[in-house]
Amino acid sequence: MARPRTPLLDRERIGSAALQLLAEQGEFSVPQIARALGVQTGSLYHHVDGRAGVIELIRERVCAGIDGGTLSSPEPWDRALEAWARSYRAAFAAYPRAIPLLMTTPVRAPAVLAQYERAVALLLRAGFATEQVMPLLTGLENLVLGSALDLAAPDAMWEPTPGTPLLARALAAQGPGRAEAAFEVGLTAFLAYARGLRGGAGAAVETGGA
Amino acid sequence: MARPRTPLLDRERIGSAALQLLAEQGEFSVPQIARALGVQTGSLYHHVDGRAGVIELIRERVCAGIDGGTLSSPEPWDRALEAWARSYRAAFAAYPRAIPLLMTTPVRAPAVLAQYERAVALLLRAGFATEQVMPLLTGLENLVLGSALDLAAPDAMWEPTPGTPLLARALAAQGPGRAEAAFEVGLTAFLAYARGLRGGAGAAVETGGA
Repeated sequence: MARPRTPLLDRERIGSAALQLLAEQGEFSVPQIARALGVQTGSLYHHVDGRAGVIELIRERVCAGIDGGTLSSPEPWDRALEAWARSYRAAFAAYPRAIPLLMTTPVRAPAVLAQYERAVALLLRAGFATEQVMPLLTGLENLVLGSALDLAAPDAMWEPTPGTPLLARALAAQGPGRAEAAFEVGLTAFLAYARGLRGGAGAAVETGGA
Repeated sequence: MARPRTPLLDRERIGSAALQLLAEQGEFSVPQIARALGVQTGSLYHHVDGRAGVIELIRERVCAGIDGGTLSSPEPWDRALEAWARSYRAAFAAYPRAIPLLMTTPVRAPAVLAQYERAVALLLRAGFATEQVMPLLTGLENLVLGSALDLAAPDAMWEPTPGTPLLARALAAQGPGRAEAAFEVGLTAFLAYARGLRGGAGAAVETGGA
């Protein structure tokens, strides 16, 4: 019954190889993963459902870094959402080249869907109307993932010239933590807007099922 | 003095080849561009400054789709900024796989720097403090580029299961134009925040040099 501790092939090793290819090349293919692991391409299909399955493996790995517990915390909804957004950005900032791939492929990984379920439950409990929930969550994700990409950018992101004196002045005036300051702008703006939207919806509290 | 109308190699053809490789592979290399154009790698260096030069070519091409004129329009600053953000998102949505590359490489293309100069001038004329300008512009870019990536995502971005009933309900309640609705949330939130920030700064109008 004992299994070898380091099997030649498992989902963990496949996910690691895919993430490494993604970091190096911005893309991966199933045959490339097989080559990197020294196995036949066909063997991979015993563990994952092709390319789509590998993408979900990557999604699980990246999203495992998000502290989903913040979504079920007893804190006020806006503080819980804020903590989730910060954790979400940090998790994706570690894998910037996975962002476009994961943002443009349907979410199927059960653990990740479960996290969305908790996020939806949080917003419903807070009193948002059902039809407001997905635009809010996706709007927040857009700024979180845009900011995660920005975190992978160099600190000196613009090279002003004598022809751009105002840009040079604005760059000189910004403090350290360029990317942090921009993320705070986006997050503060989003939370203020969401608080106002909820206020407009009155005090109707929908409890949902979670 | 006459030049051939379709030279074997020029910056336009190099930019097109690089964008096509990027669309296909999520990455490009200078030797791959040479191969695609049927020339020696060395020949490319007569036209562009290596990989960094090709990235700036791509940036010029993508940003040429942004209507920078909105930034110098006589409209109120918030409407001008909003029009720029919409145009910016549309231009990048056409090349989603260029987004991570362009977001993480310093901006050197003169035409693109000139557009930032106009954006900075707009915010200074509107009365923002110099140190507020780059966090605002970068915060806006993060949501614009995150939303541009989201526009490349499928309409059915989540595949809910029996274990995620609230997510299924929230998805069923969202109208058509999923990505548009999320972008509107982000943009509305950003503009409201910026208006408030400017209000807080009083009526001090800095005219800048543009």
